[in-house]
Amino acid sequence: MVISAGPRPCVFRSWSRGDDRRQLCAEALALEQSTDSLTPINSLEDRIEAWHSVSGKTIEARVGCIEDGEFLDKAVAEVRPEVVIHYGEQPSAPYSMRSSQTAVETQQTNVIGTLNLLFSMQTHIPDAHLIKLGTMGEYGTPNIDIEEGFIEIEHNGRKDTLPFPKLPGSLYHCSKVHDSTNIHFATRIWGLRATDLNQGVVYGIDTDESVLDERLVTRFDYDETFGTVLNRFCVQAVVGHPLTVYGAGGQTRGYLNIKDTLRCVELAAMNPADRGEFRVFNQFTEQFSVSELAALVQKCASEVGFEVAIESYPNPRVELEQHYYNASNQKLLDLGLEPHPLGNELVQSMLGIIERHRDRVIGRAITPKTKWNPGELEGGALSTAQHT
Amino acid sequence: MVISAGPRPCVFRSWSRGDDRRQLCAEALALEQSTDSLTPINSLEDRIEAWHSVSGKTIEARVGCIEDGEFLDKAVAEVRPEVVIHYGEQPSAPYSMRSSQTAVETQQTNVIGTLNLLFSMQTHIPDAHLIKLGTMGEYGTPNIDIEEGFIEIEHNGRKDTLPFPKLPGSLYHCSKVHDSTNIHFATRIWGLRATDLNQGVVYGIDTDESVLDERLVTRFDYDETFGTVLNRFCVQAVVGHPLTVYGAGGQTRGYLNIKDTLRCVELAAMNPADRGEFRVFNQFTEQFSVSELAALVQKCASEVGFEVAIESYPNPRVELEQHYYNASNQKLLDLGLEPHPLGNELVQSMLGIIERHRDRVIGRAITPKTKWNPGELEGGALSTAQHT
Repeated sequence: MVISAGPRPCVFRSWSRGDDRRQLCAEALALEQSTDSLTPINSLEDRIEAWHSVSGKTIEARVGCIEDGEFLDKAVAEVRPEVVIHYGEQPSAPYSMRSSQTAVETQQTNVIGTLNLLFSMQTHIPDAHLIKLGTMGEYGTPNIDIEEGFIEIEHNGRKDTLPFPKLPGSLYHCSKVHDSTNIHFATRIWGLRATDLNQGVVYGIDTDESVLDERLVTRFDYDETFGTVLNRFCVQAVVGHPLTVYGAGGQTRGYLNIKDTLRCVELAAMNPADRGEFRVFNQFTEQFSVSELAALVQKCASEVGFEVAIESYPNPRVELEQHYYNASNQKLLDLGLEPHPLGNELVQSMLGIIERHRDRVIGRAITPKTKWNPGELEGGALSTAQHT
Repeated sequence: MVISAGPRPCVFRSWSRGDDRRQLCAEALALEQSTDSLTPINSLEDRIEAWHSVSGKTIEARVGCIEDGEFLDKAVAEVRPEVVIHYGEQPSAPYSMRSSQTAVETQQTNVIGTLNLLFSMQTHIPDAHLIKLGTMGEYGTPNIDIEEGFIEIEHNGRKDTLPFPKLPGSLYHCSKVHDSTNIHFATRIWGLRATDLNQGVVYGIDTDESVLDERLVTRFDYDETFGTVLNRFCVQAVVGHPLTVYGAGGQTRGYLNIKDTLRCVELAAMNPADRGEFRVFNQFTEQFSVSELAALVQKCASEVGFEVAIESYPNPRVELEQHYYNASNQKLLDLGLEPHPLGNELVQSMLGIIERHRDRVIGRAITPKTKWNPGELEGGALSTAQHT
C-alpha cells in the first residue's frame, strides 16, 4: 500500500484539508500559486492504466484524505497491506512558511494524518511494516557528525543510545520531527515496525519506470515552493535566468538521484524493520554546497550552449550560510544501494528534457518570495548561538 | 495574559475541539467520564469576582478556543501582553491514550493551539515573553542524567550543545515534545523569547491565594485520567481503597508542591528569557518512586486513623518499573525558588481536606481502565531495548 500526496501510482492519495474543507493535493497547491510541473502529468487513472499496459500489473486506488481517520481506517482494514509506504504529506518547506494558515495546514496534515495511520496499523495490521518519508532537514546543521536517527551519548560517566537531537529549519521540517517522535512512540509502546527514510534533496526526472511510457513521467517542479535546488538551477539555465544562489551559497546538504530514492524504498521494503524497531536510514548519496551545484550547472549548461550567470540573492530562509556538515549514510549502502553519482551526463540530460518542455516554464515562479522571517530586514534571527 | 485550559483565574480560557465541534474544557472532559474535582469549583466569573474582592484586582476574561487562530489573534492584538503564560492544553496522558479520537484531539489542541499562539506573538508582540507549561515526561527515563532542555554532546572529536533527546511516554507527552520543537524554532528563526517549564508531578491543594476565599479553591482531581499519584493515594487512603501502585512501583519521577509551581511561573515572568532564547527549566523540587509515596501516605494516614493497604495493580502504562533517574533542577533554584519539601504535615493536611469533601468522592473513578497497549496481555512492548 502506498499513501501518496503526489502523482505517483498509488493505492491511496491523500489531500491536505484547509478549514474551508477544500481538497487540495500537490498539483492543486501548485495551481493555487499559478505554477505547475514542467512535465505534463496525466490523471491518476490514466497513469494506472499506463502502468498496467507496460507491466501487466493492476494498482487499486482509493482517493481520500488521511486526516479523515474513518476513511483511512476502513481502507487499512480492507486492504490489510504487509507494507505501507507513506508519501501522504505536505512536502514543501517554503509552503509551510508562507502564512499561519499554511503552517497550520502543514502540521495538521502531516502530524494528524500520520497519527491516524499509526492507530489503524496498531488496530488492524500490527505486524505490517511502515516506511515513512522523513527528511535530512530534521537534523539541521549541528556542529557534530549526523548519525542515522540515534546517537550514543556518554554523559557524567553513564551511557545511552538516544534519538539524535533535531534542529529543523522550517515548520514543515518541524512537522517531520513531530512524525518521528510519534512513530518512535508507536514502535516502543505498541511494538509496530517502522523505517524512517530521512531523505536528502532529490534531483533528476527519469526513473526506470517513467521512461517506459510517457504517461508515467514524474512531476518536475522548479518553482520556489516545490522545486528543489538542482532542478531549479537547470530550468534557470535553460531559460537564461541567473542561477538563484541564496546568500553566500555555502549551505551544504545531502543529495540523491530520483532513481536512488526509489531503490532505497524498495530496499527498505525488502528488508523490514523488526517488531518494536524504529529504524532510521539517512537517504542520500552525496553532499554538495549550493555554490558547488551552481558551478556544476553553469559549466554543463555552457557545454551545450546555454550561457548563464550565477547571482547571489538575499537569502529568504533563516539558515547558516557557512557551517560544518558531515552526515552518515551507511545503512542503505549496507543493504545494497548502488548510488548514481551526480555528473555532467545527468545534468545535460536534464537540460535536454527541460528544453523540450521550455514553453511550459512559468517565469514568475522562479524568484523566491516566501520569507522565513517577514519581520526582519535581512538575515533573520539565526546567530552563531543558533542552537540554544 | 494567562491562557488556560483549567479553572484558574485567567484572561483566556481555551477549549479543545473535537470533530463534532463540541466545546470541551477540563471540567467537561471530567464530566464526560463521570468524574469531577473533589473540591467544588465555582464558575469563572464567580472566581474572578472572588479574586477582585480579596485583592482589589480585576481580571479580564475572554473565552474561546486557541485552535481558532482568528479568535486568538484578535485577543493577542488587542491585549498586547508583555508575558503570555500558556496553560491552554489538554493535560492528561491517560486521556490521550484512550482512543485514536482522544489522541488526535490532544495533539491537535496542543500543537495547533500553540502554533497559532506563536504566529500571533510574532505578528503583534515579538518582544513579549512566552511562558509555556512543558513536562518532565518529555524526557522519559534515559540511562543518563537529565539536563535542563539542552545537553553538550562530544562526538567524534567535535562538540555542540543541542536539544536534550526526548523519550515521551504517552501521546500527550509526545504533543509536548512537538510544542518544544515548534517553540524552539520560533525563538531561533523569529527571535521570540520563550521559557518552557518542564514540570514534574504536582501535588497539594492549597495555594497562598486559594486560602483567601473558598471560592478560589483549586481543582483536585483523583481519577485515573486527571489525578496525579500523590493526590490519588491520599483520596484512596481516606475512602479505604488499597493504594493503587502500578506494577513494581519503582517508577521514579520529579515532584513539586502546587505552591512551588506558582512560584516558578512567577520567577520565570520576573526574569524573562532574552530575544531569541529558548530557555528550559526543569520544574520539580524532589524525586520519589511510586513505592516511596505509597509508603509515606500509608504511614501518615495511619497516624490520623486511616488504615490502608498497598496493592500492586497490573500496570496499564508501558513504562520501565525499575530504571535510573537523575534530573537537574538547578535553574529555578538559582532564580530564588525556596522549595516546600514533601512531609507528614502536608500529607496530613491533604487528608483532612479530603475528609471534609469525602461525600463527593466517586468510587468508580479510582481504578485504572485506560491501557497504553490494548493489544498486549501484560506489560506492553517496552523491553530493555526501549530506546531504539
